[in-house]
Amino acid sequence: MGKNVTIIGAGLVGSLLSIYLAKRGYKVTAYERRPDLRKNRISAGRSINLALSDRGWRGLAGVGISEEIRKVAIPMKGRMMHPVSGELTYQPYGKDEQAIYSVSRGGLNCVLMDLAEQHGVKIVYNEKCTDIDLDHAITHFENAETGKNTTVSSDHIFSTDGAFSAGRMQLQTRTDRFNYSQTYLDHGYKELTIPPTASGDFAMEPNALHIWPRGQFMLIALPNMDKSFTCTLFFPFEGEKSFEALDTPEKMMSFFRETFPDAIPMMPTLKEDYFSNPTSSLMIVKCFPWTYKDKLAMVGDSAHAIVPFYGQGMNCGFEDCVVLDELMSKHGLDASLENDSELFKKVFSEYQSLRKPDGDAIADLAVMNFIEMRDKTADPKFLLQKKIEARFSTKYPEKWIPLYSMVTYSPHMRYSEALREGLRQENIMQNIMAMPGIEQKWDSEEVEKKILGMLS
Amino acid sequence: MGKNVTIIGAGLVGSLLSIYLAKRGYKVTAYERRPDLRKNRISAGRSINLALSDRGWRGLAGVGISEEIRKVAIPMKGRMMHPVSGELTYQPYGKDEQAIYSVSRGGLNCVLMDLAEQHGVKIVYNEKCTDIDLDHAITHFENAETGKNTTVSSDHIFSTDGAFSAGRMQLQTRTDRFNYSQTYLDHGYKELTIPPTASGDFAMEPNALHIWPRGQFMLIALPNMDKSFTCTLFFPFEGEKSFEALDTPEKMMSFFRETFPDAIPMMPTLKEDYFSNPTSSLMIVKCFPWTYKDKLAMVGDSAHAIVPFYGQGMNCGFEDCVVLDELMSKHGLDASLENDSELFKKVFSEYQSLRKPDGDAIADLAVMNFIEMRDKTADPKFLLQKKIEARFSTKYPEKWIPLYSMVTYSPHMRYSEALREGLRQENIMQNIMAMPGIEQKWDSEEVEKKILGMLS
Repeated sequence: MGKNVTIIGAGLVGSLLSIYLAKRGYKVTAYERRPDLRKNRISAGRSINLALSDRGWRGLAGVGISEEIRKVAIPMKGRMMHPVSGELTYQPYGKDEQAIYSVSRGGLNCVLMDLAEQHGVKIVYNEKCTDIDLDHAITHFENAETGKNTTVSSDHIFSTDGAFSAGRMQLQTRTDRFNYSQTYLDHGYKELTIPPTASGDFAMEPNALHIWPRGQFMLIALPNMDKSFTCTLFFPFEGEKSFEALDTPEKMMSFFRETFPDAIPMMPTLKEDYFSNPTSSLMIVKCFPWTYKDKLAMVGDSAHAIVPFYGQGMNCGFEDCVVLDELMSKHGLDASLENDSELFKKVFSEYQSLRKPDGDAIADLAVMNFIEMRDKTADPKFLLQKKIEARFSTKYPEKWIPLYSMVTYSPHMRYSEALREGLRQENIMQNIMAMPGIEQKWDSEEVEKKILGMLS
Repeated sequence: MGKNVTIIGAGLVGSLLSIYLAKRGYKVTAYERRPDLRKNRISAGRSINLALSDRGWRGLAGVGISEEIRKVAIPMKGRMMHPVSGELTYQPYGKDEQAIYSVSRGGLNCVLMDLAEQHGVKIVYNEKCTDIDLDHAITHFENAETGKNTTVSSDHIFSTDGAFSAGRMQLQTRTDRFNYSQTYLDHGYKELTIPPTASGDFAMEPNALHIWPRGQFMLIALPNMDKSFTCTLFFPFEGEKSFEALDTPEKMMSFFRETFPDAIPMMPTLKEDYFSNPTSSLMIVKCFPWTYKDKLAMVGDSAHAIVPFYGQGMNCGFEDCVVLDELMSKHGLDASLENDSELFKKVFSEYQSLRKPDGDAIADLAVMNFIEMRDKTADPKFLLQKKIEARFSTKYPEKWIPLYSMVTYSPHMRYSEALREGLRQENIMQNIMAMPGIEQKWDSEEVEKKILGMLS
């Protein structure tokens, strides 16, 4: 008889985790607050695409669906910067073959739910978690359509219900010494769209992530399979240039014409999109512990909601699943064990000790990348710095992996390690960029030697 | 017709605030989660006494009861340090007449509730806040005895329900962009007791706060009117020397004999107290905003729970009441106004802007004082530093108010200002303490001149 596992939330991370657990023989039921995405495509306006990178691919590969997803993913090999006037500039994300991949959140979630069901996972919809008896792993749900209450007894619970997790709220309100913070940026975001051209083509280079960096704010665009782009405006809530200030179509259009002149002609529905799509907030959640005895573990945004600027939210959640799966293997956990309490305690305890520093690191990296994207990518000095780093890294790949590559293309390097190494590199590069005449001699032996010297 | 005000929580801050509001003509009802303290004295084991200082006295004076309370308060004029062996040392808290006052939490609360009722405040007991419709200022309560649900409509709500505030939970779960953190110390606390001697006297000097500083932890004792002392052990939850480790009477007694040898003979019920009193945790809450439109304001621990090491939790909450009352006067708010929404919005907005930096400052000061109390008060160098500061301050009272005095005896100086000034002073004193031979020349003109030079 397989042990029963309850999963709260059948989003991306919950669906993937359910497959990992089902493959180990657990009897998994996932309770999702919303209706079945496959029957009711949820309307746009909220992060309809995402960037998959190597940590995410690794999570998908573990359940054998990376190839299937790759067919519906668009590689983005670098950043394309759109200045207010003048030429576009391009900065590759890594080496030639390296890319991050734009995928549809909804599409990916549907594939994962299909696969979960093929592995015997039962997914129940419209079930909102209202309460948990943590010590007995009993979860209470209320059906959003019928109002009916359900009580579910199981052996273990996984809370994969995102940034506003109901499972986490139980830990906050029912356990002692739960450290918790939720912090909002002063910026919000709004999704806009660039449809295909009249001739049915992409309106811009599809294999890039487009950025309109404007210092305190920015617009970005990611390609979709239907040849449209999903754009996101990251913008202050309040202030002179803010969502609050752009409160009429006239003010908004005039601002866009001045600030994003090359985007305007590509956005025929800008006015409707701007005023009908919601303005969403950006929250960072840090907390600890992530688990309760052998009864409950939080996985994904539930444990560590981050801002989207490194494109790592989903990737980090998928990596959580891989780490959990590896720890279960290490401790010989499978569903056939009669008494798995002690082993589960060990797995949960190691999981949270291992992943907490990485969750914190990617949270901080994501905030740092916001500043890089909105401000530094418009700075020729910054682009030069990245060119120097890329050149050095190509020549000495063992000695220097750029921070972006460590985070994005090095799934076996921990986020916390990437952050530490990245700060060390930044320190070295500050010295390099301060060299007189660096603009001329950036590719000289002198620069190379100086870096080598500081590295050793 | 007076406007209706709902107060959630009739503890110290809620009761005092209700009096301030009743005096302005508001029709105030306070809903308290627990039974009436005056009928059911709650058992000991959790902070049964508190230290009142000048900010608190100012709050009580504003409703005319400081003299009444002073009669049942015991002045503590300094710290008495108990080393493991050797002489006690004494450090005055300020000038001769300056003291903090040990008062009974329950006794003070009872007096405040009596006075509130005399001013027409209605206090309802056993009512737990379960929900708030923030936009309509409708509060839902559930009676702990009968289970009956009550819905209360009012014009404004004040949430004075402490560190685990139900009002704050509404802001966390129902509003966007609510910044929130709860952080626990690795230390917990347990209350113990030193009864009066066989002859009915205080077992130690009553006009002092007693400290057994032991580096990573400490024991303290405050005098009570019945000539007993309430002791509190602040101690790590886990580790070699911890609550977890002292899990048998033998281990505990042996630890106390080694660590607090002079306390043991004064604590005949130590064993029972230690094993029957709860071990409580120490939490810091920071959040923002503290108010919602003109509908709700958090006051006291609800907005800013702090650790108890500066003895400022209640004092800070009382000061919140004074600040709110002053802002209401400034904006001409009273209960007779037909439409007070805009004025209340202004008062709430100024209240939170003004008090948030002060709440953050006292939270940080309280953590800093834990380290000072448990560790530095055992250090002769630290005691010398305090002596130099006291000497200089006596000679130049306009130029130097010691940090402790700014926080404790300067109710018109903001906490945030005290912290800023205190950090500046600490920086100066670091330089002074680094002077060669400072132990000999601490009261010399040279030292005095150096301080004067650094101050200007």
